[in-house]
Amino acid sequence: MAVIVQKYGGSSVGDADKIKNVARRIAHTREQGNDVIVVVSAMGKTTDNLISLANQITGQPDDREMDVLLSTGEIVSSTLMAMALRELGHPAISLSGAQAGIRTSSKYSRAQILSVDPARIENEFGKGNIVIVAGFQGITNDMDITTLGRGGSDTTAVALAVQLKAKICEIYTDVEGVYSADPRIIPLARKLKDIGYEEMLEMASYGAAVMHSRAVELGELYGMPIQVAASHNSNPGTIIHGGTPMEISNKVRGIAHDLNVAKITIVGVPDKPGVATSIFEPLAKAGVSVDTIVQNSSIDRIADLTFTVHKSDIGKAMKVVEPVVKEIGAASCESDSKLGKVSVIGSGMQSAPGYASTMFKCLYEAGVNIEMITTSEIRITCIIAEDKVKEAVKALHKAFELETA
Amino acid sequence: MAVIVQKYGGSSVGDADKIKNVARRIAHTREQGNDVIVVVSAMGKTTDNLISLANQITGQPDDREMDVLLSTGEIVSSTLMAMALRELGHPAISLSGAQAGIRTSSKYSRAQILSVDPARIENEFGKGNIVIVAGFQGITNDMDITTLGRGGSDTTAVALAVQLKAKICEIYTDVEGVYSADPRIIPLARKLKDIGYEEMLEMASYGAAVMHSRAVELGELYGMPIQVAASHNSNPGTIIHGGTPMEISNKVRGIAHDLNVAKITIVGVPDKPGVATSIFEPLAKAGVSVDTIVQNSSIDRIADLTFTVHKSDIGKAMKVVEPVVKEIGAASCESDSKLGKVSVIGSGMQSAPGYASTMFKCLYEAGVNIEMITTSEIRITCIIAEDKVKEAVKALHKAFELETA
Repeated sequence: MAVIVQKYGGSSVGDADKIKNVARRIAHTREQGNDVIVVVSAMGKTTDNLISLANQITGQPDDREMDVLLSTGEIVSSTLMAMALRELGHPAISLSGAQAGIRTSSKYSRAQILSVDPARIENEFGKGNIVIVAGFQGITNDMDITTLGRGGSDTTAVALAVQLKAKICEIYTDVEGVYSADPRIIPLARKLKDIGYEEMLEMASYGAAVMHSRAVELGELYGMPIQVAASHNSNPGTIIHGGTPMEISNKVRGIAHDLNVAKITIVGVPDKPGVATSIFEPLAKAGVSVDTIVQNSSIDRIADLTFTVHKSDIGKAMKVVEPVVKEIGAASCESDSKLGKVSVIGSGMQSAPGYASTMFKCLYEAGVNIEMITTSEIRITCIIAEDKVKEAVKALHKAFELETA
Repeated sequence: MAVIVQKYGGSSVGDADKIKNVARRIAHTREQGNDVIVVVSAMGKTTDNLISLANQITGQPDDREMDVLLSTGEIVSSTLMAMALRELGHPAISLSGAQAGIRTSSKYSRAQILSVDPARIENEFGKGNIVIVAGFQGITNDMDITTLGRGGSDTTAVALAVQLKAKICEIYTDVEGVYSADPRIIPLARKLKDIGYEEMLEMASYGAAVMHSRAVELGELYGMPIQVAASHNSNPGTIIHGGTPMEISNKVRGIAHDLNVAKITIVGVPDKPGVATSIFEPLAKAGVSVDTIVQNSSIDRIADLTFTVHKSDIGKAMKVVEPVVKEIGAASCESDSKLGKVSVIGSGMQSAPGYASTMFKCLYEAGVNIEMITTSEIRITCIIAEDKVKEAVKALHKAFELETA
């Protein structure tokens, strides 16, 4: 029998009726002769409600306790799903992350999966059970409960798929797959039949929030095909895998965007060793995640350094940076919170020239001013004004001929 | 350091403010130099809400899944309590039943504690932690979660107290202790300073629902003193222990009553071997708990058999009994749901005569007709009309001189 892993997110199991609907889909997969592992997230707003409870008790909840608290959300939905499957006549059993053999590091709230012991799940397969696993959680060697942080349930699903040698890991969510651009902005956006891991990683980290990068990276590492599809219909989704042909006719696969961008510019940074460390080490310590960093050339040994952070972090970042500016002898610093990002992504780009110039020309013709540029092998990203992002996505989607025929 | 176990019920941890209040009490016990284990129930209506969720999914929730589902309620309150204690500056850690080493039988929904492995709790004591244990739950040898059924958290508390050699097991609840009669009926009822295990067992099973019998039995077995007191004030409660002097001046300690009584009478039961089995075996299989059984003498080899059940079980019980009546050749059966029970309890009764006659005379003078009588060594119980129970309790409380001076 083939093993299939299916993951259902919080909105797909938001109430009793939704759970019953999902149970019918799982039953169907089982009836086709597969061994099925189902990974579930917490129901709808459960996690938010638990966080709010903790905040009523203390302003600084302990990480270990918070993890135990939050892990209950996924356990609740896993038991309800097992009950719903039994109601349909299918033997099913729920397992916590610990019972499913998911061993993690002890970094509470963002633990990493170290290993998966497949014994219990294999044992349950032997008894004919569909196995429902509470996502987002694991257990340390000291038997303490951990949670995996953002994207945790997706990561649980891929890890189980890898360890149990699944045919595929199916991620069911409230969107139908990965699109050539955000369908809310571009009605003509095309659902991609498939996409490469690397491309998906660029799409995901640049704002196409279908799936967390972490799970995609794990899939790439072990070559596990991942399908992203809707839980509310049976339309085919997008398959993320390693086998995307490099020489496809249109080398741009999608346009990603991100409205959550602020930048900080430090003017007149002396060009001496250790300056970058003085700036970015305190930011890291303060928990500010820095994204794009650009430094202009410094013929006179004085440069401007610009970097971007999440909008919500701009206050914290400025507090850290302002004293550093004085300390290193820079002239001043300034911030801008009204920015966005637009990216052109495609693995074919690395072997063919001209994509950058097409992008810049397109933005120029659309009247969009480019503030910063960064590139990877398979991506070109421009930081632009927030209120130009929508327009820019539209223009690029058309320019790279991504619209549905 | 002395070990003290404290258990707080669902209403004592019903919301964030109540949890913070309880945390202050725990902190106080800690500050007096004790190692403290706290057992918590689920917050307020949590368990009911989880049951209702399960019922929205299926009419017959699987026992194993139900246990996993319900166990989350106590885990939530245990983490919040640990957070509240840390907020007060006291190191604290929450443990699930499994983490606290509570091994149980695999009888889901009413598992029995088989053993307690104290290693983890002792380890946490070594680190200076107050240990918060999720009540009502344990784990089987196959690593499956179980719940302990009614009175489960009390039982968890006493079991931990026994294994960790606690000085005392304190049960905090919404009443102030064990009274000589229900204070809602008898304003002059006296709070007992102490009471023997056996007496408490008779009080508890005969309607004084302060604490579940199971936990008292466990306390008796290991001689663990148990204090019942209010969680909302610091008045002294009642201590349940084995050392109550037998020769105390007033040998009746309390009057218990129960309004949840229905009786079934089978008229004309042939007096032949196996008849009782034919009646009570199918009732047990149907899950009907039978309480008092009385059979009158049978000079003509034909007897009337009367037994009592919980009111809520009367429909189910009659459905089971009616076909049996025909099968065994009895004349007929009838039921009465408007009954109650009143009991006089005291361990001194066994060594002194006259209590029964005092009780019957008192009820006669109060105009209360006695339907059935049963006795144990330390208890006399009369089944009477439901609408006479209050009156009967009052009269007995006075007759046995239990009123506060």
